[in-house]
Amino acid sequence: MHFSILAIGDELMLGQKVDTNTAWISGQLLERSLLPVEHRTVGDDRAQLAAAIAALAATSDVLVITGGLGPTEDDLTRFALGDALTPGRELVADEAAGRTIERWFRRRGRALQERNAVQAQRPTTMRMLENPNGTAPGLAGTHGRCAIYALPGPPAEMKAMMRDHVLPDLPVTDGMRVVTGIVNAYGIGESDAAERLGPILARDRQPRVGITASAGVISARVLSRAAAGEAETQRADTNQRIERAWSPYVFGRDETTLAAAVGGQLREAGQTLVTAESCTGGWLGKMIVDEPGASDWYLGGWVSYANDMKSRWLGVGAELLEVAGAVSEPVAAAMAVGALEHGPADHALSITGVAGPTRPDEPEPEKPPGLVFIGLASRGDDDGPEVLVRRFRYRGDRAAVRLRSARTALQLLRFRLADVREDTPLLWQYPRPGSGGDP
Amino acid sequence: MHFSILAIGDELMLGQKVDTNTAWISGQLLERSLLPVEHRTVGDDRAQLAAAIAALAATSDVLVITGGLGPTEDDLTRFALGDALTPGRELVADEAAGRTIERWFRRRGRALQERNAVQAQRPTTMRMLENPNGTAPGLAGTHGRCAIYALPGPPAEMKAMMRDHVLPDLPVTDGMRVVTGIVNAYGIGESDAAERLGPILARDRQPRVGITASAGVISARVLSRAAAGEAETQRADTNQRIERAWSPYVFGRDETTLAAAVGGQLREAGQTLVTAESCTGGWLGKMIVDEPGASDWYLGGWVSYANDMKSRWLGVGAELLEVAGAVSEPVAAAMAVGALEHGPADHALSITGVAGPTRPDEPEPEKPPGLVFIGLASRGDDDGPEVLVRRFRYRGDRAAVRLRSARTALQLLRFRLADVREDTPLLWQYPRPGSGGDP
Repeated sequence: MHFSILAIGDELMLGQKVDTNTAWISGQLLERSLLPVEHRTVGDDRAQLAAAIAALAATSDVLVITGGLGPTEDDLTRFALGDALTPGRELVADEAAGRTIERWFRRRGRALQERNAVQAQRPTTMRMLENPNGTAPGLAGTHGRCAIYALPGPPAEMKAMMRDHVLPDLPVTDGMRVVTGIVNAYGIGESDAAERLGPILARDRQPRVGITASAGVISARVLSRAAAGEAETQRADTNQRIERAWSPYVFGRDETTLAAAVGGQLREAGQTLVTAESCTGGWLGKMIVDEPGASDWYLGGWVSYANDMKSRWLGVGAELLEVAGAVSEPVAAAMAVGALEHGPADHALSITGVAGPTRPDEPEPEKPPGLVFIGLASRGDDDGPEVLVRRFRYRGDRAAVRLRSARTALQLLRFRLADVREDTPLLWQYPRPGSGGDP
Repeated sequence: MHFSILAIGDELMLGQKVDTNTAWISGQLLERSLLPVEHRTVGDDRAQLAAAIAALAATSDVLVITGGLGPTEDDLTRFALGDALTPGRELVADEAAGRTIERWFRRRGRALQERNAVQAQRPTTMRMLENPNGTAPGLAGTHGRCAIYALPGPPAEMKAMMRDHVLPDLPVTDGMRVVTGIVNAYGIGESDAAERLGPILARDRQPRVGITASAGVISARVLSRAAAGEAETQRADTNQRIERAWSPYVFGRDETTLAAAVGGQLREAGQTLVTAESCTGGWLGKMIVDEPGASDWYLGGWVSYANDMKSRWLGVGAELLEVAGAVSEPVAAAMAVGALEHGPADHALSITGVAGPTRPDEPEPEKPPGLVFIGLASRGDDDGPEVLVRRFRYRGDRAAVRLRSARTALQLLRFRLADVREDTPLLWQYPRPGSGGDP
């Protein structure tokens, strides 16, 4: 079985937009044990498009095309399909599709726009695929031995149509099954992670394991291809070996995020969290609220971006801010303690740092971009809160520094809730362990 | 000139990671008036990789390859290059590259790891490209008439090496120049935006204009190809025509974000902003702090996620929350007014809504997922703050609802600061204009 995916659009070809559809479709095929073998992208050029369709149809069993089905003049997929599949023949207007598009506009209290009429046209040998989320129907047909599906580019429309029209049509493979799994860790580097896995990474091993890194999250991708039943067992065994090798940095499998992992711990403990953010500006809170059901354990927080707000809202002493500076260990501690009390909550995370870039006229050369203090305060016994502050120096641009800061904060809380030693080495901690004293 | 880009990695092929490198490289080529014509992606399979390299080298003048140069066993690019360019010959160890890798580890106080030694190997006919940000050097060489560059996959490493080694090498085109521009708007739909541009979108027009939409931001991409000087003039003229057609929804050109546009207005007016967020959970604050220099105009804000926090931190009346509900016009107003006072600031934005998904046991069927109230309070004269609340109903998942909410809030403030009528129709407003009365 030879599967190909063709993405269409000048905006992809010119680098003005990143194609996320292809990755999603590949993942869907993979879940069905169908390994895609080729991805291509072409721009909004009718001749190039027709040539790419003809070339891929000649070498593929299934070709999925995304994009170029809209109502505007740079939407050329239906015409290129006509050129490739039925050269020399005009497109025909599909009456049912025309009625559907008209209904779509009527339901929204609008008259059918003339330019949308073209969306009801199809090559004579193709059929229309209904689009529940937009005005662009899809197209399906065959060319030689290749089944062709053309879907609109907006991800929400494309995904629904893949699910409704394409995936149920796909062939079932032989006895072999491909199952995949991901194990996610945070706080170790990619080489270290590879070293820890050792022979698990061998190319000829079954299941096959590869490592990727994305903004500090290290993921082991497990791809197990074997007879049904066997494939799942082998995946489970390999997952466990990876989790042991990467302990205590592993926070979850597959799509699990750090926030979801921490949320699970807090929900189980019946505890709550508040956040006090400076340089991350709300990113930590956003990451938490990304998780449905976060209201079970997240009360909310402060974006105490200006120094004055750190004093006014969280009770950080004005003198402390003056003497130690906003980016300092005592201020991170005071922010966390202030947040814990003002919540009140069981745990409070604080982040204060220099996200960068520095301006030409900025003082404070001793606090370089990337320097971040992360605080964690937890409701203690009578002795007051249990407070931890750790110092990091992140590389990368403003977004990289802030994203890693928010993720590190969640890993610190995860460690505490899982009784992991609080001095467990973490990537980017500063000074580095063993490098001795203040740098 | 035929440029191709080949991205390598099982994680791309299997849909576990989205390829952002190809878009970035395409953008760089385009800036130099070089139009890429083909993108391909293949997995970590030595034979498939070698075949793709040979096929693309046969039809291209320049081939840029990303990924597969790391130290692990699924990094096969150098071997596949050997297979394609110098079949039957072993790779050789490059002494200079070996020393550079050793130095890289020494500077970090670590011993050279055995698995990294392979990174100093190259096909006999290729040369190494230094990597200032990692252990993987790149490779450069020619095959027939095609210049080949292989760069590591991590974006920071790839980008630096493109800038240092690849872009300076590329050919200069003839007198023709390609310049691009983007005009960004928020608050109108894609069909409406296209309707307003009319003949500007004609395929045979110069400059060529296309429209894309991403989470509510509508962008017109202008691609002007003409003699130097002429290309820029035509782009400026077309940009202006688009801006007139899309007024007052246009907030900026090229990479300008809504937050940057609002920041420019506030900085000019010498005014400040605070935020009070519920369902967005800090996303609005994050979006603001994404902009370097936001401290000039952004004081900070609250993530008043739990109802209790809306009362405790922002002074929203407990009875009001009980009677009207947290997702209501008066609560959005009270959050904005409370934030304005507690800042204190010149403007306060508030967001409260149902991000979804609903849980099976959730009450409040009259407040469906996607329903969001956005408030704006501005310091007024003696009569107290000037308060505006508008109601929206967004489609899409949790992330889509929240992202659009944050963006809409910024557009509302932008309208106020630019003296745009506050009842200007906005996409997703609810009830829709002209649909009459409460739905």
